[in-house]
Amino acid sequence: MGRVQTRVESALGRFLPARDIIPERLHQALRYAVLGGGKRVRPLLAFAAGEVAAADPARLEVVACALECIHAYSLVHDDLPCMDNDVLRHGKPTCHVEYDEATALLVGDSLQALAFQLLAEHRLADDPAKQLEMVRILASACGSRGMAGGQAIDLAAVGKSLSLPELEHMHMHKTGALIRASVALGARCSGALGAQELASLDDYAKCVGLAFQVVDDLLDCESSTATLGKTAGKDASSNKPTYVSVLGVTDARTLAGDLRRQAHRAIAGLKDGGGRLGELADFIVLRNF
Amino acid sequence: MGRVQTRVESALGRFLPARDIIPERLHQALRYAVLGGGKRVRPLLAFAAGEVAAADPARLEVVACALECIHAYSLVHDDLPCMDNDVLRHGKPTCHVEYDEATALLVGDSLQALAFQLLAEHRLADDPAKQLEMVRILASACGSRGMAGGQAIDLAAVGKSLSLPELEHMHMHKTGALIRASVALGARCSGALGAQELASLDDYAKCVGLAFQVVDDLLDCESSTATLGKTAGKDASSNKPTYVSVLGVTDARTLAGDLRRQAHRAIAGLKDGGGRLGELADFIVLRNF
Repeated sequence: MGRVQTRVESALGRFLPARDIIPERLHQALRYAVLGGGKRVRPLLAFAAGEVAAADPARLEVVACALECIHAYSLVHDDLPCMDNDVLRHGKPTCHVEYDEATALLVGDSLQALAFQLLAEHRLADDPAKQLEMVRILASACGSRGMAGGQAIDLAAVGKSLSLPELEHMHMHKTGALIRASVALGARCSGALGAQELASLDDYAKCVGLAFQVVDDLLDCESSTATLGKTAGKDASSNKPTYVSVLGVTDARTLAGDLRRQAHRAIAGLKDGGGRLGELADFIVLRNF
Repeated sequence: MGRVQTRVESALGRFLPARDIIPERLHQALRYAVLGGGKRVRPLLAFAAGEVAAADPARLEVVACALECIHAYSLVHDDLPCMDNDVLRHGKPTCHVEYDEATALLVGDSLQALAFQLLAEHRLADDPAKQLEMVRILASACGSRGMAGGQAIDLAAVGKSLSLPELEHMHMHKTGALIRASVALGARCSGALGAQELASLDDYAKCVGLAFQVVDDLLDCESSTATLGKTAGKDASSNKPTYVSVLGVTDARTLAGDLRRQAHRAIAGLKDGGGRLGELADFIVLRNF
């Protein structure tokens, strides 16, 4: 595990209520859902964006944990029987399989609240008004015109054929919104960046968010369940439109490569060429193929 | 409908995304879940507490809408088949019956995010640091050591007999946390109140929150489904411990009366004896019997 992942895992362990705090079973399920799994892509993006802004790592740590709480909540709810009905996540039984559906529902609800609690109770910006803006960015990314809305579009798309712009619209919301928020929040942990630099970072995040989904779709059809740690081939079997079903494997790979180059271009003018953000774009696109 | 209810209904109609914004079905379901029903007890408490502090009604309106978003989300999720599995709410089919389970799940998730978005994107306190504290109060009230935790305790209590302190613990979380937050947020919309006045208001809110639940339990066993607008007799049939099952009807009524008097005592020293807060305690305890 890398430096950021280790640090975030440890911080999450501290921020999540202990297993013996009432209601114990809920808190055990919360820890089960969040700890010990996942690539921590959103924390990596927040830290890398924060480094461009020379932000205090202690602030980035809190932001990274809030982002992981939101991400983990979305996975727990997405895996529920009324949604994707999946049984495997990060190589373990999903939360509702290990515990029960009602607990999984409350785990997701609690994690969303915890994310906003973290953003509000730690000092994350020199100016509290800027920190309120960070809360607004996260809330907007999570809501019906962000991640939750993307999930609704995804559900409505099952069994339909989408055009490429429609597919892009869905993913800009479903995964893109939180990835953009990750970069935006990391960058705002210091007041160092101006509007133009923040806009360049947002362009980068949009490209990386889409690339992430294109690669996810490629991996879903090309990898084994053991490699993924979640059920492979799920998209095709559940009749969901994906970049692979819309474009085919070859064009989906080309698109991922194009988005990677666009991401690099977006940050080329930033300090140190965007630092580790470039490597992260490469990692996201090049993982496993 | 009273002045506050009319104002909040109208503001909710503006703050909720319109029915024709993508994803349309989700936004229609959001409006279905929030608009046109409910006593708006939390907005009433926020406005009454805010009036003690001479707070700007425009701020109280935003806070009231955020509280109703959280309350409506909790009802939509609680009514799901994996939780209370209820089909009737405010005299209408519950959200998952009118739409579907996946949509109801996303409605709840979206409403929680919208509540925090409202608290972050409007100016609610003169000092942004104080407004961050308001976000923290709401997040904490919603989370695993607040409302969601109370729901988990409630689920674990089905079929068990609880002692009075255990029952109180459950309700302090399940309904009490958000009622305390309603008073706390309303009072903080102006900077006028000191620590002692805020503490008095919190004492009041604790009493009212418990009284509210005692009366709910009494109504559940004494009223018809038509009067309640939700399934009556649900507690007994689902084998849930209630104030009635633990204390009996007579002692539960005595307790509600005691809590009402305690609530009045808590605010006696405030400006105008707490203004409309006293009437609200009466309304909550005396409704329907």
